[in-house]
Amino acid sequence: MIQDPAALLAVAVEEARAGLAEGGVPIGAALFGTDGRLLGRGRNRRVQDGDPSLHAETSAFRNAGRRPTYFDTIMVTTLSPCWYCSGLVRQFGIGQVIIGEATTFSGGHDWLAEHGVRITLLDDPECVGLMSDFIRDRPELWAEDIGVEIEAT
Amino acid sequence: MIQDPAALLAVAVEEARAGLAEGGVPIGAALFGTDGRLLGRGRNRRVQDGDPSLHAETSAFRNAGRRPTYFDTIMVTTLSPCWYCSGLVRQFGIGQVIIGEATTFSGGHDWLAEHGVRITLLDDPECVGLMSDFIRDRPELWAEDIGVEIEAT
Repeated sequence: MIQDPAALLAVAVEEARAGLAEGGVPIGAALFGTDGRLLGRGRNRRVQDGDPSLHAETSAFRNAGRRPTYFDTIMVTTLSPCWYCSGLVRQFGIGQVIIGEATTFSGGHDWLAEHGVRITLLDDPECVGLMSDFIRDRPELWAEDIGVEIEAT
Repeated sequence: MIQDPAALLAVAVEEARAGLAEGGVPIGAALFGTDGRLLGRGRNRRVQDGDPSLHAETSAFRNAGRRPTYFDTIMVTTLSPCWYCSGLVRQFGIGQVIIGEATTFSGGHDWLAEHGVRITLLDDPECVGLMSDFIRDRPELWAEDIGVEIEAT
């Protein structure tokens, strides 16, 4: 069964919005089976839990619990996965990644495509808006979340 | 100050041993400052917490808490970091990785070296022994931990 990328993305966007409402980094993700079953969903929890290890994708992966393999899963995320989250996808053999946008930040999705992961890159206006506003309003938090030094203004 | 790799590795090995005693995947890690200060330590927690997102390195990273940047940190791990953990190192700009062994499993440490991370690869007999025994005794758990299908025997 072919899943509708926009329908799957909607779950990740809900997570991103919830993160924003909590004062967190507004990035959401969800892990689905290729049959469309939701396995786990999550959002960046740096602010909420003081946990730098929980990006949206790792949070969704964690919430999906233990599985033998991930070849038959789809990771959906509101933003292009950083190297940390791209490494997760590659190591665990997640077969497909659906991405809300890669305009405000571009991580390792081309690298994943080179390694056989099926990439669907949308250009979702709400995802772009969430991140554009966040980067403008909280540049220091965004820099921390991706481990870069904040640019002098 | 130049830190002694073997002394830093000893902390990661303690974590790996503790993981083994708990019935878990015997891989340990620790994040240090370049000044030798211990920032966080941890071990693989797949079995203990039912949490597939906590490899040893991500566990140590998590336990170190939030930091603005990681350029001045050293990740020490008993085993060559998988792509997930290598992605963590690259994304957060961790400057150096000390590895107990890469004989039983080789992850992304060459890739990290290409991207400017200083890699110190030891060939620690205890680390090799811990993993060799584990892979022999629990092949299904090891396959799960790195997301591969178990080889038919």
